[in-house]
Amino acid sequence: MNYAELVAKNESGILKDKVKPIELTNGEFVIRQGELPYYCYILLEGKVKVFHTTSIGQHFLFGIFDQSQLYGDLEIPNNDVFFNSVQCVSTCKFIKIDKDTFKRWLKSDFDFATKVNQDLCTKLMKSSYRMVDNNYFPLEYHVIKYIIESSNNFETKAFSINKEDLANYIGTNIRSINRILKQLSSDKAISLNKTQVQILNPEILNSGIKKHF
Amino acid sequence: MNYAELVAKNESGILKDKVKPIELTNGEFVIRQGELPYYCYILLEGKVKVFHTTSIGQHFLFGIFDQSQLYGDLEIPNNDVFFNSVQCVSTCKFIKIDKDTFKRWLKSDFDFATKVNQDLCTKLMKSSYRMVDNNYFPLEYHVIKYIIESSNNFETKAFSINKEDLANYIGTNIRSINRILKQLSSDKAISLNKTQVQILNPEILNSGIKKHF
Repeated sequence: MNYAELVAKNESGILKDKVKPIELTNGEFVIRQGELPYYCYILLEGKVKVFHTTSIGQHFLFGIFDQSQLYGDLEIPNNDVFFNSVQCVSTCKFIKIDKDTFKRWLKSDFDFATKVNQDLCTKLMKSSYRMVDNNYFPLEYHVIKYIIESSNNFETKAFSINKEDLANYIGTNIRSINRILKQLSSDKAISLNKTQVQILNPEILNSGIKKHF
Repeated sequence: MNYAELVAKNESGILKDKVKPIELTNGEFVIRQGELPYYCYILLEGKVKVFHTTSIGQHFLFGIFDQSQLYGDLEIPNNDVFFNSVQCVSTCKFIKIDKDTFKRWLKSDFDFATKVNQDLCTKLMKSSYRMVDNNYFPLEYHVIKYIIESSNNFETKAFSINKEDLANYIGTNIRSINRILKQLSSDKAISLNKTQVQILNPEILNSGIKKHF
């Protein structure tokens, strides 16, 4: 079950009168890093950007998400302040649930508890791989990996990329991104027209990844 | 409650005849990266090293632990292979619990489910901070931070460090670690005698951290 279904299942039970729908527009924040987690939020529709701002002002991009997602699951159990900001990049619909209801829901609905537990495991697994990859693999590897993922593993040959997001995702700057993209273009692996990427040669991209294994 | 207490609470209930004690010696592995999670393991006594080996053979050190800890909580829910290896660095006592019992235990004991959930959140929070820090802060920052943590925030002025562990923890090489330690010695922040570190000037170390904020 996804979060929307889990809400539907409980809305006349433990969630009765506890679910507050909210709608936000492009650019608005649903969560700001550093605030205490009085509520969790479930994204039902729209697209959000999840990022952490460092003490020196860099924005580390955790990801851009448009699936039914829960925010607050990481912070509420230990009452930690929000690690990331969550900003809408389109019109978004959320529901907002106070933290005590969230905790009671965890206790009373094993399907929900299992889903939350599995999602935490997935996030921790991904961030562990990403931490190791970021440490040991060069920038070129990460840019190629991002291109392959953006193409849904070569299903979509043409798409646009946001270089600033890409730089923030990898933890680097736009100049370095441009350098790699230019190299991939001159190798005829991709063609690049402003923010439009077209994949010309998947083999070159694959071998750019594989040479690190 | 810690894991040992949670085991004690359940040993005549859901864990009856399901808990297998094991004892391993220095150097033995309790978990090998890449294996399927048929069991979870609770460390009761001793010290372990938790690390991930990359495709090119580097060992990324997640940490060295001597507290009551659970391993397998990350992998069992999604049936992922073990991300890390767990190797004893002293004689260790564990208990081993099969994954189906682990799942039933989660379902039947809310204290245990809460503890597992909180620990996953703590690990994810730590790894998120570490991922961001590793991206943006220079090596010097990480070495100083490691020294301050090893001294329990300056409570212990003298201690030994393992340079290889430190290099693997930060994701770098021993040569780079030596360069930073030498610089800190010539700044009279620390004195270094082989693997023995003595803190001479906490202010210099603190300002080495603070200048990045």
